[in-house]
Amino acid sequence: MREAEASLFCYERGGAVVIRVGIYGGSGYTGEELLRLLVSHPGAKVVAATSRRFAGVPVAEVYPAFSGLTDLVYRDSTPQAIADTTDLVFMALPHGVSMEFVPQFLKAGLKVIDLSADYRIHSAATYEAWYGRHKFPEVLEAAVYGLPELHRERIRSSKLVANPGCYPTSIILGLAPVLRSGWIDTDSVVVDAKSGVSGAGRDPQIATLYCEVSGGFKAYKVGGHRHTPEIEQELSALSGKEMKITFTPHLLPVKRGILSTVYAKLSRDVTPEEATALYRDFYREESFVRICQSGQFPNLSSVVGSNYCDIGVAIDRRTGRIIIVSAIDNLIKGASGQAIQNMNVMCGFKEQTGLPAIALFP
Amino acid sequence: MREAEASLFCYERGGAVVIRVGIYGGSGYTGEELLRLLVSHPGAKVVAATSRRFAGVPVAEVYPAFSGLTDLVYRDSTPQAIADTTDLVFMALPHGVSMEFVPQFLKAGLKVIDLSADYRIHSAATYEAWYGRHKFPEVLEAAVYGLPELHRERIRSSKLVANPGCYPTSIILGLAPVLRSGWIDTDSVVVDAKSGVSGAGRDPQIATLYCEVSGGFKAYKVGGHRHTPEIEQELSALSGKEMKITFTPHLLPVKRGILSTVYAKLSRDVTPEEATALYRDFYREESFVRICQSGQFPNLSSVVGSNYCDIGVAIDRRTGRIIIVSAIDNLIKGASGQAIQNMNVMCGFKEQTGLPAIALFP
Amino acid sequence: MREAEASLFCYERGGAVVIRVGIYGGSGYTGEELLRLLVSHPGAKVVAATSRRFAGVPVAEVYPAFSGLTDLVYRDSTPQAIADTTDLVFMALPHGVSMEFVPQFLKAGLKVIDLSADYRIHSAATYEAWYGRHKFPEVLEAAVYGLPELHRERIRSSKLVANPGCYPTSIILGLAPVLRSGWIDTDSVVVDAKSGVSGAGRDPQIATLYCEVSGGFKAYKVGGHRHTPEIEQELSALSGKEMKITFTPHLLPVKRGILSTVYAKLSRDVTPEEATALYRDFYREESFVRICQSGQFPNLSSVVGSNYCDIGVAIDRRTGRIIIVSAIDNLIKGASGQAIQNMNVMCGFKEQTGLPAIALFP
Amino acid sequence: MREAEASLFCYERGGAVVIRVGIYGGSGYTGEELLRLLVSHPGAKVVAATSRRFAGVPVAEVYPAFSGLTDLVYRDSTPQAIADTTDLVFMALPHGVSMEFVPQFLKAGLKVIDLSADYRIHSAATYEAWYGRHKFPEVLEAAVYGLPELHRERIRSSKLVANPGCYPTSIILGLAPVLRSGWIDTDSVVVDAKSGVSGAGRDPQIATLYCEVSGGFKAYKVGGHRHTPEIEQELSALSGKEMKITFTPHLLPVKRGILSTVYAKLSRDVTPEEATALYRDFYREESFVRICQSGQFPNLSSVVGSNYCDIGVAIDRRTGRIIIVSAIDNLIKGASGQAIQNMNVMCGFKEQTGLPAIALFP
Repeated sequence: MREAEASLFCYERGGAVVIRVGIYGGSGYTGEELLRLLVSHPGAKVVAATSRRFAGVPVAEVYPAFSGLTDLVYRDSTPQAIADTTDLVFMALPHGVSMEFVPQFLKAGLKVIDLSADYRIHSAATYEAWYGRHKFPEVLEAAVYGLPELHRERIRSSKLVANPGCYPTSIILGLAPVLRSGWIDTDSVVVDAKSGVSGAGRDPQIATLYCEVSGGFKAYKVGGHRHTPEIEQELSALSGKEMKITFTPHLLPVKRGILSTVYAKLSRDVTPEEATALYRDFYREESFVRICQSGQFPNLSSVVGSNYCDIGVAIDRRTGRIIIVSAIDNLIKGASGQAIQNMNVMCGFKEQTGLPAIALFP
Repeated sequence: MREAEASLFCYERGGAVVIRVGIYGGSGYTGEELLRLLVSHPGAKVVAATSRRFAGVPVAEVYPAFSGLTDLVYRDSTPQAIADTTDLVFMALPHGVSMEFVPQFLKAGLKVIDLSADYRIHSAATYEAWYGRHKFPEVLEAAVYGLPELHRERIRSSKLVANPGCYPTSIILGLAPVLRSGWIDTDSVVVDAKSGVSGAGRDPQIATLYCEVSGGFKAYKVGGHRHTPEIEQELSALSGKEMKITFTPHLLPVKRGILSTVYAKLSRDVTPEEATALYRDFYREESFVRICQSGQFPNLSSVVGSNYCDIGVAIDRRTGRIIIVSAIDNLIKGASGQAIQNMNVMCGFKEQTGLPAIALFP
Repeated sequence: MREAEASLFCYERGGAVVIRVGIYGGSGYTGEELLRLLVSHPGAKVVAATSRRFAGVPVAEVYPAFSGLTDLVYRDSTPQAIADTTDLVFMALPHGVSMEFVPQFLKAGLKVIDLSADYRIHSAATYEAWYGRHKFPEVLEAAVYGLPELHRERIRSSKLVANPGCYPTSIILGLAPVLRSGWIDTDSVVVDAKSGVSGAGRDPQIATLYCEVSGGFKAYKVGGHRHTPEIEQELSALSGKEMKITFTPHLLPVKRGILSTVYAKLSRDVTPEEATALYRDFYREESFVRICQSGQFPNLSSVVGSNYCDIGVAIDRRTGRIIIVSAIDNLIKGASGQAIQNMNVMCGFKEQTGLPAIALFP
Repeated sequence: MREAEASLFCYERGGAVVIRVGIYGGSGYTGEELLRLLVSHPGAKVVAATSRRFAGVPVAEVYPAFSGLTDLVYRDSTPQAIADTTDLVFMALPHGVSMEFVPQFLKAGLKVIDLSADYRIHSAATYEAWYGRHKFPEVLEAAVYGLPELHRERIRSSKLVANPGCYPTSIILGLAPVLRSGWIDTDSVVVDAKSGVSGAGRDPQIATLYCEVSGGFKAYKVGGHRHTPEIEQELSALSGKEMKITFTPHLLPVKRGILSTVYAKLSRDVTPEEATALYRDFYREESFVRICQSGQFPNLSSVVGSNYCDIGVAIDRRTGRIIIVSAIDNLIKGASGQAIQNMNVMCGFKEQTGLPAIALFP
């Protein structure tokens, strides 16, 4: 962390800089995952986690995995109460709700990492078309899209980072190299994405009951998923052209993980080895992107539990298409892990700090 | 069944025509599924099931679900021994192996339904390119591709039916209406397909162990799955043009089911309602194809345990693509159920006879 | 069916006797399972299914597996409206609610099969101790506990059958032979039972979400599950002694199935072969109980999808205990299948009519 | 680590003491888990992992989760070759095979932690009764049973630690407090245990294929599981009486985790609160045992991914029994995590070093 900035919002403990962190809306799966990961982050301390539903209930009671690890109790706090005691707040609320509170935290001088969709889309008009009217378009403009692999420098100096959606993370990282290189027809992109059930959150509903999901598989929100504009915004920026994609999400009977299979027409001849080399080169400096060997493709089980995005690339010579397969843990690289990665960048920690390297397998 | 023909290979029991059926290679999952379904088929009786691995072992010991339901014992029989006592044989052997035996059964006067890939591809040259040299190209030419919805009349009079692959069944049924109608660009087809683990068979291998599959998800044989030529053959016939598709199979952590998501560029303006109407009309007379209401898409759990193929259609107006989602039980409509449907057609039974109508849900 | 009785409540269709059936509370999993099984029952026709939540919605919309198979629409009917058009009603409501309606249906002359716990316990005092006050103790006394293997004759002539709970079915069938034979110490019985998630119903709650259940396993209601008195009532009747058992239910990460492992001290020397012989003999005439070979034990996957109860028995000579393992499909033999078995007995159909014989495996 | 001892078998790197570790038989799930955990152990470095099957293949190819994290290549080494370069060796071989190699490593001066069953049973006669003849009874006598919660001091000074089996760990920890306190009848213990599939290892076999396990559940080796003598040895030592238990293992359709439900007759009156207090007190100093609040019971999902053993206790007053539910991750506290815990004790590291504290949930 740059000294001057750090002194503004951090405090020292035993010689080490420690960020006081709040989690606003902390009782869902992304909130819980933030807590889980931050338990072992050496430079950040969670001092508050809010929940209306579980106000007054210890975290370890709502999530018994935390027994003996934290005394934290969920509370129903006002933004001001959180702002008074924290340096940085993670917003883990539904979109629309997050929108309201973010400006208050910014005003109070906190750094904000918003895990909702509310500040991801630069254009207020596009936001309105997919989500409804945005009340704070000027704040929207100031937010940085929190994909460190693409926007690290802007994240470093930002006060408000809009943490990317889970599908977008896997898809944008998967397409960035070929879009930057100009190898594909930008209007030929088809994305077939599959997500684990935790992406749907912890609110009880019939559709995510065990008996409805186990043994099943389905497409949903075909042609109309709200992550579409966010994906197109970033892809368009990468390619320098206005892009529209076909994007079909599916519900996988697994708890965690997103695997996206991306198809595009090549605009030039490419060998599989060249494709792999392009990807390796593009992500050479990155800690959390791994490129599979030519002919190999990622499996969710190699990333679940880690902050990695694994990518494999194939060339279908018979049809002149490139096929990109990209896999992440939706709750880690697709949400809470990436949020901590952003915190690390914003606060001057080493980017890998506190982030799990290795999947839990089997 | 036409009287004259029936008398040649059937026998009467209590007034009802009964086909004596053999299952050659009956101890894998498709063989077991044939047995399971034929237990309650009123017009067919399984008189022999072969297995090298389990020769001498009762079916009910290899598959305890059969306890009390059958006394059948697996045996290691020659084709001749089977031919002497049966009217019709299902071949449930790996490709390459099946190729050898089919001509022997035909010569012995049996009707043959081959569940392997060996007789599905009309062109011996194409077969050779994907599988290796075909020893009986003249038999290959005589075989009928056993998709009743497209080739019912030829199946009816055929002696050798090549039962379609599981992926091909879902994909061809999904694309047939739009290809016949000429609505799509035939070189724009991308198929993203997902299969349950039973498609990989019962031979023990690391890749299909519980611990390797559960919680995981992956693409495999990207750009090179052997079902590709079979799919392209049928799609080309439907469209009247030589077609090449991009086809990516994935391994789903479920026991049964294939869901294929198919993408193509529309060559004309179509509303979702028109698309649904086209599909409903195309399959109006079919017992085993159901078209979802506009805006609805199939779930594996609505077809698993049944012989249905459920299809949903969407129009992505933003990109001018049609998205078709098609779901089957890979062991029933994608293998053994379809084989029995073919038997019913070949032997003059009502086409639905003995085929399960309703999925096991939850 | 005896002619005289049949004429009172049935009507004829095409020469065959057909029972008009209503399902009161038909939109949960047991209601859906009744519908699923009755679709192919040749002697019963579902003429009404009620649901408050889904009043006005077609069954095929709530459960897409029914598409094309039924036009039935859930409705919110009074008992009287149901009574006017049906001969027999299945009650698939929560306990407490069912209690209210059963007497009304009986008064209207219907046969009633109640899948709730409300009429299972003969003693009103015991009912009150576990569930709360019973409003109709005199009706309670008239009800027959609907386990055909034990009470077939009384079921045959009953107007009100209390369909057993899922755990009790597996446990009582598992213990009946050794209790009748007097081989065990009646105060030594420990039951460790494991149930699939469908037993918890379809009401959305956090505890049965996919992400909470998958990969997990737990005991629940340790020492206090409400099925205890029902089990003890039947065990006491079998042994002729007042019995108390230790009963611990667990939640299995599967959709369907109950497997109960039962332990008891032997009061005499028994070989494994004698034990197996005792069980085979006891259930010799039964269609839906299968006894494993000595040294073999049931697997849920051999019964799920069928109406079977599979039982295996071991003798632990080192400790002088008998171990009995009993497996059923909780929604079939543990609920809706058994209810139809009871209907078959009550209405004079062959007992196996419409009941699935063979598990869906894999 | 005590200085004198450390200097004998360790080397210094950058000021910190580092143990050079070998894994003999490193390509199965327990070997892989050792590698996974040791990747982040600050005081140990894996310098060799052996495998016959995968000799010459990089770990990251056999287990892609390791991509980018290690360059280690499996090799087929002699014990001598391993001994020359390591200070401590983990044996992750099948029983019978491990027996042969352990004495060679000891002779070469290494510390040995054996994850097989070969050195767990103090009595050579008992070993022979359950496994076959033991070739090195004198080594057997010298081994320490590696349950740190019971034998920490002897582990600290041992050269050979026999790492406990997965079932035994959960059961012995579950029973230790009541046995030490003398609260139960020692001949009344019934253990109903359930294990995830990874306990069966990674060798391909039909019984552990995804399609055989998913949706199923079964008891196995009823009355004859080889973990029985190991459990009885430790229970007998705790109670001071020769004990025999009834022990039934079951196969759970989950990848990881063991949950044991233990029943015993109380020999005195106990309230639930007293029972919980006894357990809390017994494990007061332990880092890896957590006692649930009275009325609460563990769920596998709260321990999977961690080194915890969670225990809940109930009193069934109706029958005078205590019910103890104990849950661990079979690959961590039940195998590799406990092995590292033992290494930490043997080598003077803080006992928690490198061991994961918090479960991966959801």
